[in-house]
Amino acid sequence: MISWKNLDELESYKKLSGLKNEVNIAEAMTGANGAERVNKYSVPMSSGLTYNFAAKAVDDTVLSALSELADEAELLDKYEALYNGEVINTGEKRLVLHQLTRGQLGDAVVADDVDKRAFYVEQQKRIADFANKVHNGEITNAAGEKFTTVVQIGIGGSDLGPRAMYLALENWAKKNGLFKMDAKFISNVDPDDAASVLNSIDVAHSIFILVSKSGTTLETLTNESFVKDALKNAGLDASNHMIAVTSETSPLAKSSDYLCAFFMDDYIGGRYSSTSAVGGAVLSLAFGPEVFDRFLAGAAAEDKKATNKNLLENPAMLDALIGVYERNVLGYESTAVLPYSQALSRFPAHLQQLDMESNGKSVNRFGEPVSYVTGPVIFGEPGTNGQHSFYQLLHQGTNIIPLQFIGFKNSQLGTDVNIQGSTSQQKLCANVAAQIVAFACGKKDENKNKNFEGGRPSSIIIGDQLTPESLGALLAHFENKVMFQGFVWNLNSFDQEGVQLGKTLAKKVLAHETDGALEVYSNLLNI
Amino acid sequence: MISWKNLDELESYKKLSGLKNEVNIAEAMTGANGAERVNKYSVPMSSGLTYNFAAKAVDDTVLSALSELADEAELLDKYEALYNGEVINTGEKRLVLHQLTRGQLGDAVVADDVDKRAFYVEQQKRIADFANKVHNGEITNAAGEKFTTVVQIGIGGSDLGPRAMYLALENWAKKNGLFKMDAKFISNVDPDDAASVLNSIDVAHSIFILVSKSGTTLETLTNESFVKDALKNAGLDASNHMIAVTSETSPLAKSSDYLCAFFMDDYIGGRYSSTSAVGGAVLSLAFGPEVFDRFLAGAAAEDKKATNKNLLENPAMLDALIGVYERNVLGYESTAVLPYSQALSRFPAHLQQLDMESNGKSVNRFGEPVSYVTGPVIFGEPGTNGQHSFYQLLHQGTNIIPLQFIGFKNSQLGTDVNIQGSTSQQKLCANVAAQIVAFACGKKDENKNKNFEGGRPSSIIIGDQLTPESLGALLAHFENKVMFQGFVWNLNSFDQEGVQLGKTLAKKVLAHETDGALEVYSNLLNI
Repeated sequence: MISWKNLDELESYKKLSGLKNEVNIAEAMTGANGAERVNKYSVPMSSGLTYNFAAKAVDDTVLSALSELADEAELLDKYEALYNGEVINTGEKRLVLHQLTRGQLGDAVVADDVDKRAFYVEQQKRIADFANKVHNGEITNAAGEKFTTVVQIGIGGSDLGPRAMYLALENWAKKNGLFKMDAKFISNVDPDDAASVLNSIDVAHSIFILVSKSGTTLETLTNESFVKDALKNAGLDASNHMIAVTSETSPLAKSSDYLCAFFMDDYIGGRYSSTSAVGGAVLSLAFGPEVFDRFLAGAAAEDKKATNKNLLENPAMLDALIGVYERNVLGYESTAVLPYSQALSRFPAHLQQLDMESNGKSVNRFGEPVSYVTGPVIFGEPGTNGQHSFYQLLHQGTNIIPLQFIGFKNSQLGTDVNIQGSTSQQKLCANVAAQIVAFACGKKDENKNKNFEGGRPSSIIIGDQLTPESLGALLAHFENKVMFQGFVWNLNSFDQEGVQLGKTLAKKVLAHETDGALEVYSNLLNI
Repeated sequence: MISWKNLDELESYKKLSGLKNEVNIAEAMTGANGAERVNKYSVPMSSGLTYNFAAKAVDDTVLSALSELADEAELLDKYEALYNGEVINTGEKRLVLHQLTRGQLGDAVVADDVDKRAFYVEQQKRIADFANKVHNGEITNAAGEKFTTVVQIGIGGSDLGPRAMYLALENWAKKNGLFKMDAKFISNVDPDDAASVLNSIDVAHSIFILVSKSGTTLETLTNESFVKDALKNAGLDASNHMIAVTSETSPLAKSSDYLCAFFMDDYIGGRYSSTSAVGGAVLSLAFGPEVFDRFLAGAAAEDKKATNKNLLENPAMLDALIGVYERNVLGYESTAVLPYSQALSRFPAHLQQLDMESNGKSVNRFGEPVSYVTGPVIFGEPGTNGQHSFYQLLHQGTNIIPLQFIGFKNSQLGTDVNIQGSTSQQKLCANVAAQIVAFACGKKDENKNKNFEGGRPSSIIIGDQLTPESLGALLAHFENKVMFQGFVWNLNSFDQEGVQLGKTLAKKVLAHETDGALEVYSNLLNI
């Protein structure tokens, strides 16, 4: 029987809290000691990735305390309960099954009289068939011409994850002859978003995916109207150009407005939906179903890694616990995600949603206020760009911000130049290596303006190349990290009640049912 | 004589520090009181903008203390010294003249035997002439064909600001018949960045702007080689396709590798350079010099606003001081920038550099460690997208994050749909109004999972429309806010020594002069 306890009820947390000044990173990372740490504090992930945490403020004593915390908090039992289909999203009384979209880690999960793994596989197969028919010209526009562009209409998890994944693989697919169609995304209710995307494409050769689990997301339905107007104005029948990704019970599911509909369900949260039909339709159309399958395989392999009982062989659980140590014991409030890969330009924005929407909460899973801090602020931009931007504060600011680097040995396109004795790819990798050591060790200078205190913790995930497999593994790693942290903090990481009040008040504004401050703001904004 | 003192030496700061629990935002913003605050706590800016700070944790007592702080810290005297040409960037012994690129607020500034205002105006005129010749076909490629695309090669301030400004005005220019050329940007040393931009354009009809003040930025010179290779491979003479924006003393200034060179100088920091030739060349080519002039006019008008001695009529100084109150008295560590405008999608990334690189420092302008916190973490994404992403944490997380909203009454393209009785633009505005009140007032619920504490401070800048003028004003507002905060914290906001150590270590890696941890990381990354 799993016991859901608050973090501050755990004995192992009290012990961990006593280890506040355990490690001086600058000392630990200097000299032969430092080299030894980098070799030692490294965990293999799947798909050619490695999680290296040598530059974190941990040592064997802290790691041992974290391992006790993992045991006492029953993290692996909770993960097992989750993938075996227990109602882990207690607030909404829902199962949490995103891992099941890419593999089966435990028992068959039957819900609503359906084997859920079979259901997800069936949807993937339906999408694959559809995408193949679009690619081979069996499904065309009314003029019998092939579709060349796919446009995803969705917001939040229906936008950020799929968009980040598309951008991550676009160049790789082009290089490897696997690129099928351009993908575009319409998300914001700002009318300029839809209008400018529609101005940039040839609607006659575009297929639109309407993504809304409930079929009631206001932004998405509004943007659907935008698109239908554009199709109508071009003399086209919208129902030949639109498909839906939704739940079987939504009003979109059986509507004749769509060529067809692919299904997800209430057991997949938006921010966890990139491996469901939400990511599957757009990615399979853009790159082909085989590429999407490889992406799923990478995620599945990483999910499996997260079941390892040995903390030092479980990268997601380790990453999660080090994050808890930094947040609750060392008192750090933010984390920067810094991929040294332009293809991952929107990956930090996806992780920002994944993490902050899952664990940005003040009550535990029983609705009781917790008396410790929970999810951090997540932000980031690709390196080396960030180095010429906000790294100044990371190096010399008054607060310490833990850093999550990501780097790959090889570029995706393989085009390169050799300048001053090194390639661009070598320069890119040299920079990320240099930054880790600069942040960790610092450099003393009598001119305090040029002095670097060091002691700024980071970890790095290193890969061979950003491919469908390694991207899937990266995605799953962070999903699982966030899940484990939610378990430690005793939160429900799978609801998002904090977004409701704004929606309710916006409706009041639009219905002109306002008073007080809200009425004045509405007037100022000419609503 | 100006006196440069640390914040904690000021009597007015001691007084301010005693006002920690002065305002309960939820109470203050509820009922008729709230309506009164929204009307009262509003400051006109230039270019149709208004700064409204009703939902900040301030009242007349706090504002009076902030006004005393402004006086005691001599903020306006320091601003005056800056625009009159004193050496405000003391670390690098440089003047700070970015305001002079768009207007003259005080005395003539003569440096290096040159009237600097005349120098900047001359460069703008040279750029305007060049851009007009490109647009009317006097300057063409070797085949006599017009250029259709401009590509900026630069990183940090040579990328983030100009890119954010381009994206902000792209749709507006298209709508108003002022769009001249597509602009693209190459920034990252990741070879996939340059390669994928080059794959996406027609190099024969592209003109490239190499932007590097020193002419030595490694990323930028590397990417220049990338571009030159591409031009050469296309059988083209690179010098017919490239211009430079650099300082007059840089190796690029008189090189025959470029069609021509436009100049900036050491008195304009990269992150403050959007109104110099760094932004001027690309924006004048993309939209025409008249649009760039209008952008400068908006910035100049806002610079003028920042000279007002009455704190309540000086939006940048007020915004700055409220920020200091939140950071140093209320203890908030981050600030989210939330533009309800898809066109401002990269504006938060620009502000992130502007703010964090300027004020992310631990020593004062004399190189002495300060004993108070300085610049916050800045992050953000456009609304309504953010609402479906990280707003969960902003509403219900365990830390309070001050919020900077931006909203416009009108869209740029004017295309809209009416769904459920309102347009998309109305929905967009209704959402931002609703969010301010939701964050401020919260909503009590017995189910603590659905409970909103409120008390989460925000301000909003409201405009009629995002135009060149209002964009310029927005840019200048935040530049001046950051400047005033730097004065309060007694920092040098205009150097960035924190970026140097990483550069030095990266060079060592590339020269294989490493040992210890750095050597192991280098091996792991295959350098």
